[in-house]
Parts: sequence; C-alpha cells; structure tokens
Amino acid sequence: MAKAWLEKTDSFWFFDWKFLSATISSMQLSAIKQMEQYAREYEDVISLSQGIPSLPSDALIRYEVINQLLSNRVDSYSEPAGLLSLREAISEYLEHDGMSYSADEILITTGATEAMSATLLALTKPGEEVIMPAPTYAAFTKAVHIASLSLTEIELREGEGWRLDIDEIEKKVTANTKVIILCNPNNPMGSIYDQSTLVKLANLCVRRNIYLVIDEVYRHMLFNQDTWYSPCQEEQFKQQVIRIGSFSKDFSLTGWRIGYLHSDKQVVKRILPVHDGLVNCAPVISQVAALASLKYAETIIPEHLALYTKQRDIVSSALTQLSETFSFVEPQGSYFFFPKLRQEVDSMAFCMDLLRKERLALVPGTDFGKGGEGHIRICFGRDPNDVIEGMKRLIRYCTIK
Amino acid sequence: MAKAWLEKTDSFWFFDWKFLSATISSMQLSAIKQMEQYAREYEDVISLSQGIPSLPSDALIRYEVINQLLSNRVDSYSEPAGLLSLREAISEYLEHDGMSYSADEILITTGATEAMSATLLALTKPGEEVIMPAPTYAAFTKAVHIASLSLTEIELREGEGWRLDIDEIEKKVTANTKVIILCNPNNPMGSIYDQSTLVKLANLCVRRNIYLVIDEVYRHMLFNQDTWYSPCQEEQFKQQVIRIGSFSKDFSLTGWRIGYLHSDKQVVKRILPVHDGLVNCAPVISQVAALASLKYAETIIPEHLALYTKQRDIVSSALTQLSETFSFVEPQGSYFFFPKLRQEVDSMAFCMDLLRKERLALVPGTDFGKGGEGHIRICFGRDPNDVIEGMKRLIRYCTIK
Repeated sequence: MAKAWLEKTDSFWFFDWKFLSATISSMQLSAIKQMEQYAREYEDVISLSQGIPSLPSDALIRYEVINQLLSNRVDSYSEPAGLLSLREAISEYLEHDGMSYSADEILITTGATEAMSATLLALTKPGEEVIMPAPTYAAFTKAVHIASLSLTEIELREGEGWRLDIDEIEKKVTANTKVIILCNPNNPMGSIYDQSTLVKLANLCVRRNIYLVIDEVYRHMLFNQDTWYSPCQEEQFKQQVIRIGSFSKDFSLTGWRIGYLHSDKQVVKRILPVHDGLVNCAPVISQVAALASLKYAETIIPEHLALYTKQRDIVSSALTQLSETFSFVEPQGSYFFFPKLRQEVDSMAFCMDLLRKERLALVPGTDFGKGGEGHIRICFGRDPNDVIEGMKRLIRYCTIK
Repeated sequence: MAKAWLEKTDSFWFFDWKFLSATISSMQLSAIKQMEQYAREYEDVISLSQGIPSLPSDALIRYEVINQLLSNRVDSYSEPAGLLSLREAISEYLEHDGMSYSADEILITTGATEAMSATLLALTKPGEEVIMPAPTYAAFTKAVHIASLSLTEIELREGEGWRLDIDEIEKKVTANTKVIILCNPNNPMGSIYDQSTLVKLANLCVRRNIYLVIDEVYRHMLFNQDTWYSPCQEEQFKQQVIRIGSFSKDFSLTGWRIGYLHSDKQVVKRILPVHDGLVNCAPVISQVAALASLKYAETIIPEHLALYTKQRDIVSSALTQLSETFSFVEPQGSYFFFPKLRQEVDSMAFCMDLLRKERLALVPGTDFGKGGEGHIRICFGRDPNDVIEGMKRLIRYCTIK
C-alpha cells in the first residue's frame, strides 16, 4: 500500500506542457516559490508549500494603519534605521524575553530576508565562508550566494532528533569562517536548539571571532514556551550575535515585508549603510502596522497559536496514519512538518507527481540543503480547510492504488 | 557682500556638541541622510536636502489602498516578480512612452534603490567594473560598493552644460567593464542627456557587451516634455538596457518603497532570484498603491508638476539674486538645483555653517562624486513654505554680514 505512489511514477515525464511551463519560467527560484506559483496558476491546487499564515492581519492592526493613512503620516521616508517609535517599541518587546537592546541597537528591515542579506553583505567580504547547519531555510543559501560567500553545511539528522554537534562545527571552522547561520526554531523541521547547545555555539563564536546570525522568526510560534532560549539574553554575547525577527508569521503580515535585527550598537552601525543602500528604509506603512502589532501582541499571538496548534494536530494525525510511508518528528515550533519518506526516493519527483495527480503542492526536501533529500515539507499554517483537504489528498495518494 | 559667509566661518569648529552628535552617529550614511537627520532632530531647521516630495499621496490612491485593506488582500506575499495586475498596468503605462515591455519583462522592486542593488548584484561579479558619469545620485555609489565592484567616474562639468562625452567613456572601457550607470534626468543637476548622446552610448554598450542601467525616476518631472528620450524605446537596445522607474517622486510615495525595473526577459530572469533573495517581494500594500497611482496618473502628475514648476521659479529667482555667490544651470527635470559656489570652498563646510547659523539644511556637492565639490544641492520639491523660507535664509546668509 505504502508504495502505491511509486508504482505510478512511470508516467512522471508525461506532463501536460501548460503545467510544466511554470517550472521553466521560474527555474531559478526555489522549489517553494515554484510550487506556490503552480498553486496560484491552477484553481484546483491546494498549497501547503510556502509559509504563508492563513489568518488575515488583525482588524486592530488594520484599524491603526487606516488611521495613519488618513492623517498622511506614511508617505515620506523614515530614517534609514526605521521609525524611532517602532525601535523603542521593539526594545520594550524584547525586554519581555529577557533581551536588553536599546533603540539604536535595532534596525527595521524589509522583512527578515533583507535583514539576512544586509547582514551578510555588511559583515563579510566576497570569498569568505559561512557555516550553516542544514536542512534549513532555503533563502539563507540564496543570501550567501548573493554576498559571494562560500558555504559549508553541517548535516543534521532526523534520527538524532535534529541535534547540532558543536564539536563538528568547530572542526569545520577555518580562519576564513566569518559567520554561522542558525534558524531557531528551525524551518523546515520545527525543531529547536537547546540552551546548552546555543551557549556552546555562542562561546565558540566569541573564541573564534565569528558572527552568529540567528533567525528567530518563529520564536513565538512555540508549542511549549519553556523550550526557548536565545544567546541574546546574555550581555556577553551581544557583540557576536545578530538576531533577526519578523512580523510576518506572528501577525500574518508576510506581504507587508517588515522585520528587524538587533545586535551591539557597533555591529548595527556597520549594517545600517548597507541596509540603506539596499532599500533606503523599510516601507513606512508596514512600520506603522508593526507598531500596531506590538501594541496588541498579547491578544493576537495566543489566538493565532491556538489555531496553529489545532492544525498541527490534524497533520500529525494524518502522518501517523501514513506511518508506513513516512517517519517524522513532531515540530516543537514553527508551522512546518518535515516527514521523511521511508522509501529512498527523489523528493522532487514525489512532490511533482503528487502535484500532478492530487493537485497538492508540498515542498521537496532538497530545497533545504544537505540532509533535506528524502523529506518533504508541509506547512500547517495555511487555511484550515486547505490543511484538512490537503491531508485527505496526501492520504489518498499514499494509500490508494 | 557675496563673501560674507566666508568671513564668518572662523567659528566653524565651535559647534555645540549636541548638534554635532548626529553627524558622529551617522558617519557612514550619506551627507543627504545626515542633513535630513538634523532636520528631524531640530524643529527650527528647514530642510531642502533629501528629495522628499512635499505633497501627500493623493486621496484617490489612499482610498483604493483602504478598500484593499478592508478586503484582506494585502497580507500575503505576492509572487517575487510582483502582482501580475501591476506588471500589466506598468506594461500599458510604458506604451504611452513608446516602450514595449510585456509583464514578464517587468520586475516590481522595493523602490528604485533595491532595483539598482539587485541589478548590480545579479549581473556582475565582485571586482568587475562600473563606469558612471558624475556628479550623480549618491546611492549608486553605495550600490556599487555593496556589490564589491570597482567604480570609474567620468566627470561632467557645469561649464559644458553637464554634457556627456561618449568618446571619453569609450576610452575608459576595459574588458572588465560590465555596467554603465546613468541617471536621466540626472540627480543632482536636473540636466538631461539628449537623444544623440543616449543612442551613441547604447550602441557602445551593444558593441562592447556592457549593460546600461538607466535610472529614470524623474522621467515625468520634466519641464519640457519634448526633451525626453529613452533607449528603451528601441527594440534593438532591449537586451542591453535595464531601465529603473519609481512611484516615489511622481506620486509622493517615497516612504512606500515601491519601484520597478524592465529589460529583456532573459535579463529580468537573472535579476529575479537576487531580488527574491534580497526582499522576497515588494511590499504588497505598496504594490496596491502603485496600481492605484497608474489608474490616476493623468490627473496626479500634471497637478504635482504645476506645483514644482512654481517652486523651481522661486529658487531660480533667489539664485539669480545671489549671482555673485553662485553660478547655476536651470534644471530641465527633477526637483533639484545644483548651483556652484563662485569662491573655491569646501561645500561640506559651507553647508555645515549654513546649517548652524541659519538652520537651513542643503546637501554638499561632495556627496555626488567626482565634479560635485564646490556645488550645493537644493531640493525644491519640499513644502512650499519651506522653499520660500529656505531661500530667505540662504539670501540672508550669503548677503548680510
């Protein structure tokens, strides 16, 4: 039964060309974006591919944005670092997480993506090296390439609970290593790094004078709050760590392109002119939305988390039902599952066949670097009906001849 | 009389420290941004420094944005290239200017700034060379540095009517030259390049296989429409030319960070993944504002231009009155004057002294590269009362002991 889909892949290459054309025209984009493109082009495709929250932005946020729109306060550039009021609000918000950063240690960016690119372009020179545990978020690799850096991946394994071995990292460090990139909770696995691992890693970075860039955009999307720790909670790591946050996930503002980074004042000062040269400043209307988000964070975040928890359980239940096809580790954070196909198969072929036969878009594990092949990523943060229908289609595909 | 300010600069170094601190904390930003920072920090400073339109975004634009906000259509990512509806609208808009580009030859960017950075990062390798006539917009130099490119400036001169000598450019071209950057109408001089010059330059680029990146964000801010020509009007130059446009200036949307680029499909395809890696997609709410802008362009643009024309005349009249202090060429486009101080003086020192004594922020010519020193830039697109008061202060500073 579990191998049903394998037997059907003979016809894999007999695509209808209209369907294939989207692949060709977006060949240079990640598989995530390619899958999402299909989903946009065909009405009957259910997409659990790109990480887009199903919920709209909260009415409280939109109410404040409209008020500012009516008073003409969003048309002009902000200063490059972002609105002081927003940086002050983030400073206060970070306090709740035990992180002490003043407004001039915070930089408002055009989403977490720009924060990562600006950081790498500012703190490295072409040809220098980045170390990155993988699987991890596909966009990091792109940022590394844009900055003309070389990339060394450290493979994480499902069988080891996605544990990071700091000694393995240390062995890879050379005089040319300038940055280590981490995503915590990690996309696509939903795994988190524990305190002891993170402290060891931060100490290694201090010792070897390497920047640790941590993307924590899923920090509030945790199913057990006690599991979270950030090296940014400790003053001693401030000069070494650049932490990236976002309003996209917690507040359903992906399209608004608004995020931030924080670090020591001197580090931020180096990133600022690069950020300025890339985008001038983050969109001001989105900065206003971010400010409103923080005002209502205590209401909005738990509401969203409750929904995602339910949807996680739906996917968990479906994958348990498909235990002959997949192994998986329950995510501790984020809105992703990253199950492993028990058969050794090409994850891209699996996803393309699934897309063609069931019109369900998931992301092949290859998109997430070393150790990703053989896995597929499922986003359970999408529309509840899509999550239910998507799991129905996945079950049908994997079990019915 | 004209030298009055020179005699006062003895006290130049006796700054109050509070005032100076802003310079120190933003040392890595351009003089434009530094000056703007002063203007934000001190209520009594009149700023004619950064190019920020005084007019708010049109009510028609905001009305459409609010409608989309209420229908939850701006929260999710667009595809990386931007909303198809917007790219189609730009395609049609370009038709009016005799430029034929389909939706997949257009890329929506986070302002013209990101368009330039993404283009350079996508089409060049570190160490390759950019040729750029100067004085020109300061942000280009920043984009060149971010992409780790080497820069060769070709000096333009007021005395020669800011004419560009293509033979001089050709002499500088080497096998390492990959891009020529042009701003037309040119910031800070408000000068334009004529058709014969542009055709020669485009032909040179075809012959030597160099990309010509033309920033035309002031294309509609022209005081005589007949003067404009773009090589993008000719199919033969399509593969060689990348043209950058923006909604910032024409529609007073600087803070919304929304612009675009267009070129041959294959060129756009190379820039797309870099754009995706830098910002993912342009802010969707700003894409909605851009779409509304184009809908009402025929109403909005002439209204704005009429105001700027009046304000240009005010500055022109003031500078004529100050003919002992400055020489100048009347701008043909943009909202900038770039007068030259008749005395050989440090333009930064002039601007700082003017700022300290008269609380008027202008931009020193040094910010615009080779040939900029000795000039100052005045933006006449700012608030009408600020333009009037600014000129009053400039006249007082230059003529009264």
